[in-house]
Amino acid sequence: MRTATRAPGGRRAAGGAAGAVRAPAAAGAVGPRPAAAGAPPVANAGGLATPAGRRGALAASGAAVAEAPPPACELTDEGKGKRVIIIGGDGYCGWASALHLSARGYEVAIMDNLSRRNWDEQLGFDTLTPIASLHKRVAKWQELTGREIKTYVGDICDFGFLEAAVKEFEPTAMVHFGEQRSAPYSMMDRNKAVFTQMNNITGTINVLYAIKEFAPECHLVKLGTMGEYGTPNIDIEEGYLDVEHKGRKDRLPYPKQGNSWYHLSKIHDSTNMFFTTKTWNMKVTDLNQGVVYGVDTPETALDEALVNRMDYDSIFGTALNRFIIQGAVGYPLTVYGKGGQTRGFLDIRDTCQCIQIAIDNPGPAGEMLVFNQFTEQFSVNKLAGLVTESGARLGLDVTTKSIPNPRREKEEHYYNAMNTNLKDLGMDPILMSDGKLDDVMKVALKYIDRVDMDLILPATDWVSSGVKQGVSKVVS
Amino acid sequence: MRTATRAPGGRRAAGGAAGAVRAPAAAGAVGPRPAAAGAPPVANAGGLATPAGRRGALAASGAAVAEAPPPACELTDEGKGKRVIIIGGDGYCGWASALHLSARGYEVAIMDNLSRRNWDEQLGFDTLTPIASLHKRVAKWQELTGREIKTYVGDICDFGFLEAAVKEFEPTAMVHFGEQRSAPYSMMDRNKAVFTQMNNITGTINVLYAIKEFAPECHLVKLGTMGEYGTPNIDIEEGYLDVEHKGRKDRLPYPKQGNSWYHLSKIHDSTNMFFTTKTWNMKVTDLNQGVVYGVDTPETALDEALVNRMDYDSIFGTALNRFIIQGAVGYPLTVYGKGGQTRGFLDIRDTCQCIQIAIDNPGPAGEMLVFNQFTEQFSVNKLAGLVTESGARLGLDVTTKSIPNPRREKEEHYYNAMNTNLKDLGMDPILMSDGKLDDVMKVALKYIDRVDMDLILPATDWVSSGVKQGVSKVVS
Repeated sequence: MRTATRAPGGRRAAGGAAGAVRAPAAAGAVGPRPAAAGAPPVANAGGLATPAGRRGALAASGAAVAEAPPPACELTDEGKGKRVIIIGGDGYCGWASALHLSARGYEVAIMDNLSRRNWDEQLGFDTLTPIASLHKRVAKWQELTGREIKTYVGDICDFGFLEAAVKEFEPTAMVHFGEQRSAPYSMMDRNKAVFTQMNNITGTINVLYAIKEFAPECHLVKLGTMGEYGTPNIDIEEGYLDVEHKGRKDRLPYPKQGNSWYHLSKIHDSTNMFFTTKTWNMKVTDLNQGVVYGVDTPETALDEALVNRMDYDSIFGTALNRFIIQGAVGYPLTVYGKGGQTRGFLDIRDTCQCIQIAIDNPGPAGEMLVFNQFTEQFSVNKLAGLVTESGARLGLDVTTKSIPNPRREKEEHYYNAMNTNLKDLGMDPILMSDGKLDDVMKVALKYIDRVDMDLILPATDWVSSGVKQGVSKVVS
Repeated sequence: MRTATRAPGGRRAAGGAAGAVRAPAAAGAVGPRPAAAGAPPVANAGGLATPAGRRGALAASGAAVAEAPPPACELTDEGKGKRVIIIGGDGYCGWASALHLSARGYEVAIMDNLSRRNWDEQLGFDTLTPIASLHKRVAKWQELTGREIKTYVGDICDFGFLEAAVKEFEPTAMVHFGEQRSAPYSMMDRNKAVFTQMNNITGTINVLYAIKEFAPECHLVKLGTMGEYGTPNIDIEEGYLDVEHKGRKDRLPYPKQGNSWYHLSKIHDSTNMFFTTKTWNMKVTDLNQGVVYGVDTPETALDEALVNRMDYDSIFGTALNRFIIQGAVGYPLTVYGKGGQTRGFLDIRDTCQCIQIAIDNPGPAGEMLVFNQFTEQFSVNKLAGLVTESGARLGLDVTTKSIPNPRREKEEHYYNAMNTNLKDLGMDPILMSDGKLDDVMKVALKYIDRVDMDLILPATDWVSSGVKQGVSKVVS
């Protein structure tokens, strides 16, 4: 399955032709310099808890960090003839997936209303990495690879927009990342709670009707979340549970217990899709994705204009990316409460791989497939330990502190989730425990001057969510 | 629990005082005349399938129907000190419940945007019974009983409206019937699908926030539906399922499988409420109600201006009420498909009783109670049989025909649902099998001239639900 093997030499591919691409500009070393083996860790002392101080200290100590050479991006035709709309294709997972598929010969269109960028503007946030506009991104991709990614800029809650796009593009698959995907954002206040559920549920209902009416053979690949399951005291199966009760048996949808308006919205999507799949005989795959980490994929690393977003703020930043940036800037990793909270994780490159596998393997019409899309599970404390180790390898002294948990959740619990469905279809994971975090840490160090220290502490708590407008600034 | 015992004589109660009320006007026999015992059934022949023909035939054959004497309505003070907002209090279950509680000394306010009346207007429907306006209804109630029911006319999706009302009324309980409650309506087209979910989910989220912010001790009694469970091949428990899986145990939310956008919206409400109950330490009771039938309660029967609605159209008419009216007008009972579909049912008077019990018995804060609110379960074929028997007792020859099922559902399946929680709290059911259907049939006959024969066949099917505006007229 893995197609991103290092090609012997970079060359410019002509439109749609197979081959390896490596952008010349990306080959130069930018950012921190290579570390001397065994360099002493940089102490996390006063004055270092600012990006500039951190980088200065790194330089002074002689510690520096090698940037990995950009991976080669191979162009193939394996997806030829498949036409895929990526809803939310300008977002973190969507952008990486769009390029991954385009590089593999799928005809790709990005459908996005760019709301993710707008939420950052509204809250005063910015991605660590300086992302280009959608228009510049796809233009650069075409320039480098000769492959066109069509764009449909608009809102899937606007059915007229969606209808026109589906009729024009005639997708064979739609990948639906296009939702408000932050639990803390959904918990900021009542307004954002209602917005999150209305936006996510309406969008998905519209997509279901658009497929039913205008592209009935189209396979919907919908992103759910492992967070739909909550933390039950039994093993988490993939979407369904075989139940024996009072001497009778049935295979039922796995009981869900979401822990934020966002997670709940994805449960509602799953429940709605289960109904339409049966009733309208649709082809639907529900991917319960874990927490994604990492930045570069072979495709996004080709050029600075293709760089993916990396969110480290307390609202949109996922736990691990936030830890990595806290570690990079010399701020203690902020573990919520006891840190025994355990979740599933996966590398952004595995997200791409899973999406491709899902697209290529629809189930029988009328039967919703559910895959748990993560590769490893870790507690928050274990994650903090992995980031600390990675920092040490790069000459950084990373510390950890516990802060009051802004969420209402179990901080110590049983957690054992299944994830064999995608592996059975050929998924070959990139494991965090293999030391892969170092590459992500290097990206954080490269952009360390862009870190806004105001954004790395929690700003939303589950209990105070109310009528008053939620604020994005630090509250603790 | 039953308080509607026949009082020795009707008298006009002063404001809030206990006593029995019987409106003089209601005592006169209106509509069909008493039936002679053993009168031959009226044949269901050609020319009879119109209301006028039916009543003419009844008269010609000497068959006629006795109207039951209006039940006495006893006024008590048992609910004194409890302040209850009934959201959707102008609707079928809401109106009956509002009067039931007011008669028992609860301070009642009705909150309603009157959308149920508007949907009838939009579709060209009307209730069989000529209901008075909300304003005339509550004025008549006060005139007869001296008890005031405050009204808040507005939409709970408008949070400002809801906030002001909750702050003003200071409820100790809110009963939430205020949703779009028709499965066929939700399946008419995409627009109504999205409306149903947005309306129902937003309204409930708003109510949860209003309670959390402005009335944190208020007990929410929310109407769900037995249809949330679908038709699993195991027993249906009350809200939760004790699961043993791979040697571990947990008590989990019962897996839900809704079969229309409407039923799904109630699942989403339940899932959302389960979260807020835990996270915000709320008092919430979720009532999974069965199919309600019947018209009169002791309170609504007091005066023609208090009469409850009775829907027999294919969109808002529940199965049994529709059968009763089909039987009354001499139209064959239209069984969808094989007729093995089995569901839970209850008398409208038991709805009132259950609501009162639920209000009076909140669970501990932070733990959502779930009660299955039905008293008997029947297959559609069995229901048709009961209506046929009831018709025979009243001198009507009722026939049945199978029509293509407009829904996608199992027509033969296992069904065994628990309903002990409310009984354990004192619920004393009125059973259909006791011949109680005859009273409902008599109401249908009383208003037989108002029947619109165009409304009694299905107009919405589950598979054609699409983008084109759904139509309300007969399609088969």
